[in-house]
Amino acid sequence: MELHAMDLYIKSLIKEAGHRIRNSFISDITIETKSDANDLVTNIDKEIEQFFIERIRRDYPGHRIFGEEGFGDDIQHLEGVVWMLDPIDGTMNFVHQKRNFAISLGVYEKGTGQLGYIYDVVNDDLYYAVRGEGAYYNDEKLKPLIDTSIAESIVAINASWLAPNRYLDHEAAIRLVQTVRGTRSYGSAALELAFLASGRIDAYVSMRLSPWDIAGGAVIAGEVGAVMTNFKGEAANLLKQDTFIAANPSIHNIMLSDYIRLK
Amino acid sequence: MELHAMDLYIKSLIKEAGHRIRNSFISDITIETKSDANDLVTNIDKEIEQFFIERIRRDYPGHRIFGEEGFGDDIQHLEGVVWMLDPIDGTMNFVHQKRNFAISLGVYEKGTGQLGYIYDVVNDDLYYAVRGEGAYYNDEKLKPLIDTSIAESIVAINASWLAPNRYLDHEAAIRLVQTVRGTRSYGSAALELAFLASGRIDAYVSMRLSPWDIAGGAVIAGEVGAVMTNFKGEAANLLKQDTFIAANPSIHNIMLSDYIRLK
Repeated sequence: MELHAMDLYIKSLIKEAGHRIRNSFISDITIETKSDANDLVTNIDKEIEQFFIERIRRDYPGHRIFGEEGFGDDIQHLEGVVWMLDPIDGTMNFVHQKRNFAISLGVYEKGTGQLGYIYDVVNDDLYYAVRGEGAYYNDEKLKPLIDTSIAESIVAINASWLAPNRYLDHEAAIRLVQTVRGTRSYGSAALELAFLASGRIDAYVSMRLSPWDIAGGAVIAGEVGAVMTNFKGEAANLLKQDTFIAANPSIHNIMLSDYIRLK
Repeated sequence: MELHAMDLYIKSLIKEAGHRIRNSFISDITIETKSDANDLVTNIDKEIEQFFIERIRRDYPGHRIFGEEGFGDDIQHLEGVVWMLDPIDGTMNFVHQKRNFAISLGVYEKGTGQLGYIYDVVNDDLYYAVRGEGAYYNDEKLKPLIDTSIAESIVAINASWLAPNRYLDHEAAIRLVQTVRGTRSYGSAALELAFLASGRIDAYVSMRLSPWDIAGGAVIAGEVGAVMTNFKGEAANLLKQDTFIAANPSIHNIMLSDYIRLK
């Protein structure tokens, strides 16, 4: 796979998709709900996924595509090259805020992330990485993550995970919130991974993410040393929805052992 | 008071302060802690407050200044004209993220907000209002808030308020989190008020805010119809720290009656 040629191709494709999304703000956006009333999808999510798939199928016909809206392939294994795409990560922000959402794209070969992109469409900010060559925020090379402590960390965690629930030991999560320097919640897994990669937050925790939510960010955050697993400490799942924690390497272990625990 | 002349003066002053803050990124920032280990203050917070105070005392000598860092006046009443200033609202974001903080300024006459400014320094985004003339986001006039429902609302609330605590009925707050469409937390009261005023969130809740945190935002959010009180439903306190809820007018009552309750 010629990564540098693909990298240029993908950047151009993402910028064009971003342009289409920004243009959509002046037209009608149709909002539907998916699994529950707060799981939103719009015609724009669908149109943008179809735009990507059309181009990728034309220009990289041997590759498969795993997309959030389901217009891609039925992915049961990670052989060959798989593009993992969330056309609009943070659809609720897209609908309610018209900002704070991103295009997320990762290209994986035999299950290994080779290219990663998170494009903050409204701010025109691109985070990206080619495996082994470091991660970038626009033209700026991102620095390796610096060691920190739990007490000085800023952790992105949604307040809803602190309510009693079937999966997570919410009392341990509450202790986390009481121990860290601060918590934030931005509503886009892709952007939260980008913020981790650029050192603005020190960890990101979610009870439920899909491969396309994390595929792009995993390549980027991995390049600066972030550690990413599910809550059992296993490698992040690229075939199905799972729990997810991404953290500065100096706090990942203690986060899992002391604060983020499955019931 | 000649509000339009002051408005032009203040915009110029805020932009100059923003320029100084952005310049500080290339110099050394000294970080200290205040009341607790996570209550940060830097030399830049102090320098920027002193910059404002020097200018205001020179150009508006009869006015008093209520500033977060304490270089202003000892404010025990709201007679005359009082400038309420937070030179860097969201200091933790300033230190850790180098973004997502704001200059917050409100000018009050006999306790009534006449002018309000929230300046997102890194994005160069200014939210402002002259009392009775509507609120603006840069050159765009903000629209009056549209009615919504609790179930479709996005509420800014920090995860820490969901832990058991002495003040808030945290179980009711957990019900809120489980009822609304989504929650967010950005780490700057001023920006969260700006986001409420621009319709990106529908409510903002905090257990503990000071007058300078809310003074600028209250004028701006008030112009688009937001309702702001403490948790008892009383007018926001402009002399001392208090609880604070700002919300779309269609959900403020139910937020207070059903979800945000003092113990």
